[in-house]
Amino acid sequence: MISRVLVANRGEIAVRVIRACRDLGLTAVAVYSEADADALHVSLADEAVPIGPAPARSSYLDVSQVVGAARDTNCDAVHPGYGFLAENPALPRACQAAGLVFVGPPAEVIERVGDKVSARAAAEAAHVPVVPGSGRLASAGAALEYATEVGFPVLLKAAAGGGGRGIRRVGSAEELPAEFTSAAREAESAFGDGGLFVEKCIVDARHVEIQVLADAHGSVVHLGERECSLQRRRQKLVEEAPAPGLPEALRKEIGAAAVRLAREVGYRGAGTVEFLVDPSTWAYYFIEVNARIQVEHGITELVTGVDLVATQLRIADGSPLPFAQDEVVARGVAMEFRINAEDPARGFFPSPGTLSLMRPPAGPGVRVDTGFESGRVVPPFYDSLLAKLMVWAPDRPAALARARRALAELRVEGVATTAALHGRILDWPDFVAGRYHTGSLEAFLNG
Amino acid sequence: MISRVLVANRGEIAVRVIRACRDLGLTAVAVYSEADADALHVSLADEAVPIGPAPARSSYLDVSQVVGAARDTNCDAVHPGYGFLAENPALPRACQAAGLVFVGPPAEVIERVGDKVSARAAAEAAHVPVVPGSGRLASAGAALEYATEVGFPVLLKAAAGGGGRGIRRVGSAEELPAEFTSAAREAESAFGDGGLFVEKCIVDARHVEIQVLADAHGSVVHLGERECSLQRRRQKLVEEAPAPGLPEALRKEIGAAAVRLAREVGYRGAGTVEFLVDPSTWAYYFIEVNARIQVEHGITELVTGVDLVATQLRIADGSPLPFAQDEVVARGVAMEFRINAEDPARGFFPSPGTLSLMRPPAGPGVRVDTGFESGRVVPPFYDSLLAKLMVWAPDRPAALARARRALAELRVEGVATTAALHGRILDWPDFVAGRYHTGSLEAFLNG
Repeated sequence: MISRVLVANRGEIAVRVIRACRDLGLTAVAVYSEADADALHVSLADEAVPIGPAPARSSYLDVSQVVGAARDTNCDAVHPGYGFLAENPALPRACQAAGLVFVGPPAEVIERVGDKVSARAAAEAAHVPVVPGSGRLASAGAALEYATEVGFPVLLKAAAGGGGRGIRRVGSAEELPAEFTSAAREAESAFGDGGLFVEKCIVDARHVEIQVLADAHGSVVHLGERECSLQRRRQKLVEEAPAPGLPEALRKEIGAAAVRLAREVGYRGAGTVEFLVDPSTWAYYFIEVNARIQVEHGITELVTGVDLVATQLRIADGSPLPFAQDEVVARGVAMEFRINAEDPARGFFPSPGTLSLMRPPAGPGVRVDTGFESGRVVPPFYDSLLAKLMVWAPDRPAALARARRALAELRVEGVATTAALHGRILDWPDFVAGRYHTGSLEAFLNG
Repeated sequence: MISRVLVANRGEIAVRVIRACRDLGLTAVAVYSEADADALHVSLADEAVPIGPAPARSSYLDVSQVVGAARDTNCDAVHPGYGFLAENPALPRACQAAGLVFVGPPAEVIERVGDKVSARAAAEAAHVPVVPGSGRLASAGAALEYATEVGFPVLLKAAAGGGGRGIRRVGSAEELPAEFTSAAREAESAFGDGGLFVEKCIVDARHVEIQVLADAHGSVVHLGERECSLQRRRQKLVEEAPAPGLPEALRKEIGAAAVRLAREVGYRGAGTVEFLVDPSTWAYYFIEVNARIQVEHGITELVTGVDLVATQLRIADGSPLPFAQDEVVARGVAMEFRINAEDPARGFFPSPGTLSLMRPPAGPGVRVDTGFESGRVVPPFYDSLLAKLMVWAPDRPAALARARRALAELRVEGVATTAALHGRILDWPDFVAGRYHTGSLEAFLNG
């Protein structure tokens, strides 16, 4: 049985995991870089160990440091949080070698869903729709033929690319040949492989993702969806659950598809299956699996009442899921607003510094997850997430009103934040109406 | 339509009402005594007006000051919170005369349920069980006869008494004549009326109360019960919802009884019907109606998802209840721990002062309602409630674990508090087992 958990992360997710450990009666051991010696997650943990200098590659990204810290402190499990090592199969492998329980899926599952080609193959095997795509193409002519068949616009993607790199949008047949030539050259120099493929571009798509939980005994359930279309440069800024205006039948269908895929790959733990949804046809397409807890997991907790992080720990400990699919009951609407230490007026440039004041909002239907408090320092080395302001209410108009109230209560001094931008988003008619897609926020910001 | 609300209170309940106003898009105007000029509720309100010196009778208890403040600031409604003027019929009368909406029941309803005799009569008319009692007695002999009939122990109560004053417990027939003589003398000198009556004493009774909501259109619903047996000197210290171990049929029966009584008296707004429950027989007895929002309302909000304060405001505005009885669905378990600025080591003596530090716990399933923050002053003039630490979890063991975690996160410096005592309560086997009654806490504290 797990009793001591190394929390291999920092910031709000480290605090979140520490709280889940405490809720389960487990001892939580924090790790920290030199820049985080005075961080809140260090104060809240039962114990804390330094794991190296500020740059993440020398501390939070260093598998041997993390596993060494777990061994040195007699931990029996490691929770990776999100980011850093969470989806690096080297960590579960090193944990296994050291006799430690990794709180996450097995290394082979992380690898299988982490590779675009094998993830897509698994989706097809599970009869989950994928974005129509060509497979590797030999020539611009073959690309043109495929693109004409599925219809423009299309995306030209580097077969060896990843992380959003090597992707071009092609709007018409005329543009294609020149784009093909230059994209192939670019892919060759970036990845050492000039291979390309064509994918249909879903115009004005919505990003809808399904939270799944799978135990080690074959039980897989989903906890409904999250709408994450409000993005800037593929970074989510606002999320909500459930997705506004999604037909009930589609909601069920996508949930069932996510469960099939999780079964297909032998998933274990908490994971998210991401989809694009075309609001003009309600067609949906698998994009990828996130084999970890996600930043926005809290809004699913608020609507379902299920503690996802505690459930991760229980699953890792071998417990069966404590509920079946038909026992998952969603209630009301939850939204998350990411308060980043960034300055929207200066191109969202990071704004590290000392928090001379931080007063989170509180009261009914408000939850704030943060790794900071008044007097703490936001170091310049890591992501800029300062706090996740979450609200819950019985319906969407009430959630919007509560979000406005909570934002008005929030006070942060010492660093620039995205808080005022969220106030503008809450007055934006398209957001208020729940009519937005992955392109909407950038248009709003530029408009 | 209501648009500007005078919040005629202070501390956490003023903050709570301000938040509900904001959630509904209403403007909240605070009032404050000289001692509260720098209080949090003043900072959070849209506007704030001084209403007099620190002693409550010169400010928060002064009907003309409160109504004058509402008129001066062009408010159209007054929310009294709890305590102070909340159950004083003079306030709704003065509001009516000034053309202001009072957020609470009509003056006549407050009077009817506030008077012990008429409240008891209403309960009987509504076929709600009351504690067997004799009515006014002429002599010690008549008292002895009645007491023998219902069985000892009994309570001797002053007919004109109230607020827990003039009550004596009589354990046997031998003690009765002397107690009768001295109680009659005491009642005569305290209330100018030596009249006494006998009431059956429910041994080891539990205090279980039902939250009701009634609109102006004849709709009355209940939102389940709260267990409030953990009391010291009749002051509640810990509350939970639902009441642990209560048979489901009894839960429904008491809820239905509370609704009948609310209908009988023409109740309007949010109210609580309090009962004693005999755990040896599961008999239940009406005690009294609290014609206001209660301190512990938040735990009902956590399990039902209903915002009670916002609903009070909507009802006052003439809106019908937005749900029917069968749409009220409770989920999980909620507990409240009252963090008072009192020193348990010194007989719970009040401990006012400056909060050099106050860090409330946060994270999933934790809600803290408070009128204070770091740097604010707890004045010596009012009640000692510093914060209400509330937790929610899917089941009672998880709620207990979360409460321990949340208490461990709480840091208060500058004043003494009841926080450590709550830690002891959470390790107390009778509390952990949910086996406690109104006498248990005092026995625990003395044991």
